[in-house]
Amino acid sequence: MKGDRRALARAITLVENRENGARELLARLGERAGTSFVLGITGPPGTGKSTLVDKLVASYRKKGLRVGVIAIDPSSPITGGALLGDRIRMADFATDDMVFIRSMASRGWSGGLSAAVTDAIRMVEAWGADLVFVETVGIGQADVEIARIAHGVAVVLMPSSGDDVQVSKAGLMEVGDIYVVNKSDLDGAGQIALHLLAMVRNSKERRQVVRVSAVTGEGMDQLMKAVEALRAKFNGRDGREMRLKSISGMMVELAKHRVLASFEDAVDSELIGRLAEQVTDRKITLAQAVGKLSARALSG
Amino acid sequence: MKGDRRALARAITLVENRENGARELLARLGERAGTSFVLGITGPPGTGKSTLVDKLVASYRKKGLRVGVIAIDPSSPITGGALLGDRIRMADFATDDMVFIRSMASRGWSGGLSAAVTDAIRMVEAWGADLVFVETVGIGQADVEIARIAHGVAVVLMPSSGDDVQVSKAGLMEVGDIYVVNKSDLDGAGQIALHLLAMVRNSKERRQVVRVSAVTGEGMDQLMKAVEALRAKFNGRDGREMRLKSISGMMVELAKHRVLASFEDAVDSELIGRLAEQVTDRKITLAQAVGKLSARALSG
Repeated sequence: MKGDRRALARAITLVENRENGARELLARLGERAGTSFVLGITGPPGTGKSTLVDKLVASYRKKGLRVGVIAIDPSSPITGGALLGDRIRMADFATDDMVFIRSMASRGWSGGLSAAVTDAIRMVEAWGADLVFVETVGIGQADVEIARIAHGVAVVLMPSSGDDVQVSKAGLMEVGDIYVVNKSDLDGAGQIALHLLAMVRNSKERRQVVRVSAVTGEGMDQLMKAVEALRAKFNGRDGREMRLKSISGMMVELAKHRVLASFEDAVDSELIGRLAEQVTDRKITLAQAVGKLSARALSG
Repeated sequence: MKGDRRALARAITLVENRENGARELLARLGERAGTSFVLGITGPPGTGKSTLVDKLVASYRKKGLRVGVIAIDPSSPITGGALLGDRIRMADFATDDMVFIRSMASRGWSGGLSAAVTDAIRMVEAWGADLVFVETVGIGQADVEIARIAHGVAVVLMPSSGDDVQVSKAGLMEVGDIYVVNKSDLDGAGQIALHLLAMVRNSKERRQVVRVSAVTGEGMDQLMKAVEALRAKFNGRDGREMRLKSISGMMVELAKHRVLASFEDAVDSELIGRLAEQVTDRKITLAQAVGKLSARALSG
């Protein structure tokens, strides 16, 4: 599959649809785990993450690097998907065989999103990517989970009343290696940047705050420097620790997914239906039914 | 615990923090499973779900019914929590012992959110609620999962360019029993309502479209009628089917959570660390490490 962008697209579809052959294919890909630098890009909706990622991809293409982008799309019956955006973005790099962009719907991946993303990252690695950007919307779980899997995380914010408050919330400091204030020409950009600088000053690890405008390109050089500093760390002495953390995270997510899959194999709708009847008729309690159901999975 | 609002609050905290005694407490609560009518309320952020729920609670209090509200808060390191809102809402009904409102953070509940919400619903049932409203933001998984657990779902939308498109997306028709167009005084409310009516006309099951303004109270009577129709169904001939579906959903979510918990018990960080070293040093593949990790959990 190395280097073949179309084969990569087919392989990811295989995993996404949980088709036969996906596991066999993945088993053969283990060798390159931890070779691509994986940067998670997260932040609230509408902060311009996609535009920012596209600019980063373009910059890395100028350096001659091979780049993968996995965009996790928080689609749901309510919010819908954003595949159109995906197609538009693909068009930008359509003739460039060294760029692979793929969006994955979070819908239907309950408890297994990270496993699917991990599998996709491994495939992009096998394709030979130097860098993989994993873009998630900072709502729900994907943003927290990506921090466990990626080698580094960039949190993208923009000047707005909401973000300012959000930044103050506990937990934010734990995920970001780089804080990006996008749309830096808007009012309040300075304020949010100062706020972030005050936050990172109190943290033990070195974290960066960068003001950019993805649209005008202002500040992009500084952002590239910050990403390059992380990538240098990954390729240097501290790289082993970053790889160990990421591989541990991937391993746990994949194993969890495997355990849930074996649960789904072990329990059938007939058993569920029978137990539900018994609970409804007050013959057994819900807790007893849950005990029976989970025991079936764990003994299988 | 029946009737004691403070005991209920303590019990839910116990479950939320996965403290000792939670499982024993829950085991004793099985008897009342399926006695409260559970309505899921979902929709994109900013559509006014909370205000709508508050109005529904007030209406049901006038009828003398005991009401529980569980608000699932899509908090994350990025978006932060909304506990302030919870406290403000509680104040409205602070002196009313027949209302229980609780928000639960979705953060940290990866793969186990539905289990926590299910446990909370069971506790609110044991407290003696006639109705339980479960409010989720229509992003990510919670909105899909609530449809499996609740007896009915109301999807709340508002006139806006985004929602209009979102409504068209596949999947939306599967979750809603009632479609609410809130902020019906805004431009475009008629258009979105027509759009929804065209959609529900093609569905086999009876689904309602209601235009309301939660703030002015316009249309609230019609919404109450739609909710009452669902509740009558729950208390009538079709109730058994609704209960069976909900109990099946709860059972599966709780069993999944149990299986994941036993995975977490079985694998320790020492084992994960050791396997991660072996993968990093290319002694075993990631797939092999995942196999070892999940085997440990499933044989435990």
